Amino acid sequence: MRRSEFQAGREECVRFLEEKNDGVLAFRGPDGWPKAVPLNYAYAGDSIYFHGSKHGEKMAGLSDDPRAEFVVHEAHAFIPSYFSDPYLACPATVFFRSVRVRGSVVQVETAEEKAIALAALLRKMQPEGGHAPIEASDPRYASSLRGVAVLRLEPEEISGKFKFGQNLPERKRESLVRNLTERGLPGDADTAVRIRDTALKKQISET
Amino acid sequence: MRRSEFQAGREECVRFLEEKNDGVLAFRGPDGWPKAVPLNYAYAGDSIYFHGSKHGEKMAGLSDDPRAEFVVHEAHAFIPSYFSDPYLACPATVFFRSVRVRGSVVQVETAEEKAIALAALLRKMQPEGGHAPIEASDPRYASSLRGVAVLRLEPEEISGKFKFGQNLPERKRESLVRNLTERGLPGDADTAVRIRDTALKKQISET
Repeated sequence: MRRSEFQAGREECVRFLEEKNDGVLAFRGPDGWPKAVPLNYAYAGDSIYFHGSKHGEKMAGLSDDPRAEFVVHEAHAFIPSYFSDPYLACPATVFFRSVRVRGSVVQVETAEEKAIALAALLRKMQPEGGHAPIEASDPRYASSLRGVAVLRLEPEEISGKFKFGQNLPERKRESLVRNLTERGLPGDADTAVRIRDTALKKQISET
Repeated sequence: MRRSEFQAGREECVRFLEEKNDGVLAFRGPDGWPKAVPLNYAYAGDSIYFHGSKHGEKMAGLSDDPRAEFVVHEAHAFIPSYFSDPYLACPATVFFRSVRVRGSVVQVETAEEKAIALAALLRKMQPEGGHAPIEASDPRYASSLRGVAVLRLEPEEISGKFKFGQNLPERKRESLVRNLTERGLPGDADTAVRIRDTALKKQISET
């Protein structure tokens, strides 16, 4: 059941996809079984690009059935049960962001589009540069561009679930913020900000 | 193409599954499309347990077709191209561990097994305790145990890919270790240790 209060808008989903660099691609394998493959990606020109070998299971499975779902996920903070209940374990949960993109995957054919995809990937992973621009016209990249397989997932549907306590009454949310601030694990301060921002956004959208 | 030099042994895969707490479950959705759902899990009694709502897409999809693949992934370090090539972007890569488990998913029916699964999950997420033991015999947990759906993935195949430069000659590996040590990002020191450990294990297995 997808609870509507956790659903993120399309713009937030796209920003999240632009921010992150890996996820998991689900598709039907050549043997008919579902496959779950972790991949680095770049979001460019409203598409999601992956790269890999020309002879792997991704190619075989996706050429039989191009339907796929790609998910990008970040766990922000574990919320222990004792933050809100001294006895029961039930309230234990995780605050997270996840975005799922579904669509068909096509193989990129031209060196030009491969270069655009790989350049976007490198820009994400290696923003400091330190390499020659990846361009189809650079002869030193020609054989690599020929040899690599690049896949493009064309989004038909993008859906996001961002969970930051927006289902809780203000009193409980503020108690959570205090608990996280006191705990002070890496990510807790950031999560506290997200809890308040998310509540504020919800409040604005409801007025 | 799965390169054999990166394949991890079963014992290493199980240790990794015991160490981590979230992954992505791939299965066929009720509409026939592949689904990729991030989930917390516990590895207990040689099975993987998830929990969720009784009325969601997981239930609907998996009761039609129980075949699934679950993947757990950790990116340890990004290796920029300039660590080994002053010009081309091609050597840029990520060192990681990932384990994929495939098998059928069944719904857990008894309160006793649900309690075992949820207790294992809480032990992982909240090792410091701070809650009453999750037991089917505790009446305060009775309605929660009835209401929650717990799924068990019974592994038919576990495969792991651990990439830490074991395909490289020693000279290049040692240069990587120096580069990572100098860069000093969080995780780099740990990755340097893994590079040497993985090489050592490979050397031992080959003699």
